[in-house]
Amino acid sequence: MVKIVLDAFGGDNAPHEIVKGGVLALQKFKDIKIIFAGDEDKIKEILAESEYPFDRVEIIDAKEVIENNEIPTVAFKAKPNSSLVRAFDELRTNDEAIGFVGAGSTGAVLTAGFLKIGRLTGISRPALCPILPTVNNKHVAIIDCGANMDAKPINLLHFAIMGSAYLSTVYGVKSPRVALLNVGVEEYKGNELSKETYELLSKQPRINFVGNMEARELLSGNYEVVVADGFNGNVLLKGTEGAVVNILKMIKGEIKKKNIRKVGAVFMKGAFKALKKKMNYEESGGAVLIGCKKIVLKSHGNSTAKNICASIEQVLDMHQSKLIEKISQEIEKG
Amino acid sequence: MVKIVLDAFGGDNAPHEIVKGGVLALQKFKDIKIIFAGDEDKIKEILAESEYPFDRVEIIDAKEVIENNEIPTVAFKAKPNSSLVRAFDELRTNDEAIGFVGAGSTGAVLTAGFLKIGRLTGISRPALCPILPTVNNKHVAIIDCGANMDAKPINLLHFAIMGSAYLSTVYGVKSPRVALLNVGVEEYKGNELSKETYELLSKQPRINFVGNMEARELLSGNYEVVVADGFNGNVLLKGTEGAVVNILKMIKGEIKKKNIRKVGAVFMKGAFKALKKKMNYEESGGAVLIGCKKIVLKSHGNSTAKNICASIEQVLDMHQSKLIEKISQEIEKG
Repeated sequence: MVKIVLDAFGGDNAPHEIVKGGVLALQKFKDIKIIFAGDEDKIKEILAESEYPFDRVEIIDAKEVIENNEIPTVAFKAKPNSSLVRAFDELRTNDEAIGFVGAGSTGAVLTAGFLKIGRLTGISRPALCPILPTVNNKHVAIIDCGANMDAKPINLLHFAIMGSAYLSTVYGVKSPRVALLNVGVEEYKGNELSKETYELLSKQPRINFVGNMEARELLSGNYEVVVADGFNGNVLLKGTEGAVVNILKMIKGEIKKKNIRKVGAVFMKGAFKALKKKMNYEESGGAVLIGCKKIVLKSHGNSTAKNICASIEQVLDMHQSKLIEKISQEIEKG
Repeated sequence: MVKIVLDAFGGDNAPHEIVKGGVLALQKFKDIKIIFAGDEDKIKEILAESEYPFDRVEIIDAKEVIENNEIPTVAFKAKPNSSLVRAFDELRTNDEAIGFVGAGSTGAVLTAGFLKIGRLTGISRPALCPILPTVNNKHVAIIDCGANMDAKPINLLHFAIMGSAYLSTVYGVKSPRVALLNVGVEEYKGNELSKETYELLSKQPRINFVGNMEARELLSGNYEVVVADGFNGNVLLKGTEGAVVNILKMIKGEIKKKNIRKVGAVFMKGAFKALKKKMNYEESGGAVLIGCKKIVLKSHGNSTAKNICASIEQVLDMHQSKLIEKISQEIEKG
């Protein structure tokens, strides 16, 4: 029996969808316990709406909530009894707790992961790593997507090692192809960081480094792990998200212009639905903060119960595939 | 009568499409001359395929070609008689020549712009600035998209001023909304560069700085000028391009799965066509290298004659709207 800690009050749809997501997971997985952190009365109210195994539920009463616009370190001090802080305190001190799931402020989740859970020995910087679907129905990871703003080449080397371990361990990809995000494929291209990182990655026998990748290749299916500093990775992830959302809006706009197109759109409804599901990568969980001593999972801010349940499943997958142990081994090999 | 210099041997479809593009422009605009740089015999051969005003054509015989994978500064020394080097030499020395259009190596065009044409007085760094269509049928400029790999806050301030001048002068946008590309909208977010730049832009009364922008907002229509260093801007531009291309591929894949969807797609053909045209921003020309003493325009590598003609029109627009003079005035105001 493992325990997973949930920040019940993080996210646009908190606490309702978060608590419901926990219940879904409890129903799906019989060998887990969920520890909800947040206002106990409200959590109990939501729990009472459904059947749930009360012997596998714990609640940490925490009345405060950290908002999206707060500076994490300041908020931690000002709100020691916030759902997020208390959840991370529990994760740190409870040996049975294997991981955290939360949909609140990304900055706060990352900062808590760094400060309260801490880095794995040998890892210079943990990194945020979401997974996206590619055109050939495979997956691609971007690491880092926002945890490290001013990164150094050694950090990016660790991102490459962790990303490889993630894809091979959890997704079963043999020898994941690792690429460095850059402005061109040529070795001499890029900024100081990318040039130095290229050299470092080229020398590393433990990863399958295939060279530089231009941003337009992200969804091509030619790479499994894309290494970037947190700023660029964030731009790539959000730029891709935004383009997808807006291109679908533009298609909608074009459809509305003519009746014949509207008819066509009805016939094609299934295609758009399938695509939306595919691109909604939150459906398959959240982005993991890799490199901490325990599993820290950041779900999308607008997570529904389904998303939270998927995130909990993701934590279980990572736990069962021994991702953290695998990363430690790789780093020890040097 | 103004003259525009064309690198007839730059681009995937050179020299044929480039020369044809020049002819198209000569037919469309009666008050311009085109100077083609490249292998004279081949250029004459292609010119002979159509009717063209031979009194408005000049040819600079240049037998060498700079390839995409060459390091620009090395290539300039090794190939002084390349079409690109000779084109820029002509632009520099010929007072009647107002601008350059080329679809060859981006790095070579940028480097030639820097070294052979030079910066406008007061501009710390020229920047590459493409224009994209937004969901509300307006335009957004990304500046810089690849000319400056390791930029400083003062460079980004100049990008903001130049981008504003471009949108107001050439596109007629009153008081363009300038945003700084960042990982979040909050003032305290980002890397060292973005934090310092935020402060600098906030203090600048001459631009309409509206704050930070997340990458997903690029096509939203809420901003006209997005300021970034060349690395980040490149990731944003190419990430957006790639997402659009791949999302259309994914839709195609979903359509193929069922016959009813195929029927729907036939009815919707017009919508996809309109969208493709809209997103193919090359149709409306290329990306301008702003901040040089003359107009330097980089057309997309796969430019057709139509694209080249559009790029030439873009050069004329910039010339007629006195973009360079306007930038100089803004910078002088300090």
